[in-house]
Amino acid sequence: MLNPELISLENQVFRCYLGWSAVLVLKIFATAIYTGLMRFFTATFANPEDLMSPKLKVKFDDPNVERVRRAHRNDLENILPFFAIGLLYVLTNPAAFLAINLFRAVGIARIVHTLVYAVVVVPQPSRALAFFVALGATVYMALQVVLSAAF
Amino acid sequence: MLNPELISLENQVFRCYLGWSAVLVLKIFATAIYTGLMRFFTATFANPEDLMSPKLKVKFDDPNVERVRRAHRNDLENILPFFAIGLLYVLTNPAAFLAINLFRAVGIARIVHTLVYAVVVVPQPSRALAFFVALGATVYMALQVVLSAAF
Amino acid sequence: MLNPELISLENQVFRCYLGWSAVLVLKIFATAIYTGLMRFFTATFANPEDLMSPKLKVKFDDPNVERVRRAHRNDLENILPFFAIGLLYVLTNPAAFLAINLFRAVGIARIVHTLVYAVVVVPQPSRALAFFVALGATVYMALQVVLSAAF
Repeated sequence: MLNPELISLENQVFRCYLGWSAVLVLKIFATAIYTGLMRFFTATFANPEDLMSPKLKVKFDDPNVERVRRAHRNDLENILPFFAIGLLYVLTNPAAFLAINLFRAVGIARIVHTLVYAVVVVPQPSRALAFFVALGATVYMALQVVLSAAF
Repeated sequence: MLNPELISLENQVFRCYLGWSAVLVLKIFATAIYTGLMRFFTATFANPEDLMSPKLKVKFDDPNVERVRRAHRNDLENILPFFAIGLLYVLTNPAAFLAINLFRAVGIARIVHTLVYAVVVVPQPSRALAFFVALGATVYMALQVVLSAAF
Repeated sequence: MLNPELISLENQVFRCYLGWSAVLVLKIFATAIYTGLMRFFTATFANPEDLMSPKLKVKFDDPNVERVRRAHRNDLENILPFFAIGLLYVLTNPAAFLAINLFRAVGIARIVHTLVYAVVVVPQPSRALAFFVALGATVYMALQVVLSAAF
């Protein structure tokens, strides 16, 4: 059932995983850059050597910076496990239609999550919905991988 | 020595890596859900749009929520590097008995770590032991991978 | 173009990815150990059960500990996505010379980043340079992977 040939651009499921993983890596880095820009705009620097002017002091509690940092941390908690489990899920040789739509769901939901959390704050439950769509799809993949390992 | 055929459910070492990785992904997400529940129980919300009632204010210092968040962050610091290095270690074609027990050690130690840190607080050195068992096993794998790359 | 045979120690590009990934896993864990040592030296413990003496209280704001924790978190934000995208980049069968030097750039830049951030504080722009070298190399890999998936 598992076959190293699954790891090939010829396999459209792997190709979809590959593409969305790369997009999500770029999305995580976009959030990192956005944190840096927000630090400049609000003059919120966490290290003395980062202060641009002798009048500034280190600051840790700017609400705009902290909001982007929470969105960024949420990415680490959710997208990074997806990178690992998505690849293992491809190796279980799942049905293409289902797998491709799960990858799309994770990719789109995580982009929406960042937009409604850190770019334009949209009232709940928009962020919760984006969070649970991505989480649900990733948990489903993990359960399929557990079953593949067990049987 | 390295062989793509190692990435196959026929290879019991890969199968063990696959199973424990999926279990640990589910464990990380369980901690995420637990953080959310703890936020509800203690009414500790970090974003204005999350407040369930106009009487609530954003709050960042609930000790129960912060404890789960520290356990969660510790997972990111330790389990996510294991996902990467465990796969590469499988590709070095290690002895099955050793590799399987290393994966079990990481999996069980990280579950115990969360339990004694965030669910039922057990006095030290229980958490330190769980931490160092998983760290030691992962460091051993990383050293084996470095040796494989070098020779 | 994609070929599971690329995942082999015979492939010098994969071998280079493998070696630098293992080195960076060890580097992340070194930062973790360094955080622990810094907590001991400054008697800064975040959990009541960690206090070594009844005279101590939990403490969250020691600047030396917080500095190492920021360096550690920055590793999670940058090195962990590299583990995922580096492997996928190897599978796009890149030119060896370029790929090997990109991996070296990421590996060396992230080690320098930790040194100038958390070990010996060096004035800016040293940390920013190390950060952007690694980020730039990883973004390039992600863009190549997106192109491979799309065409």
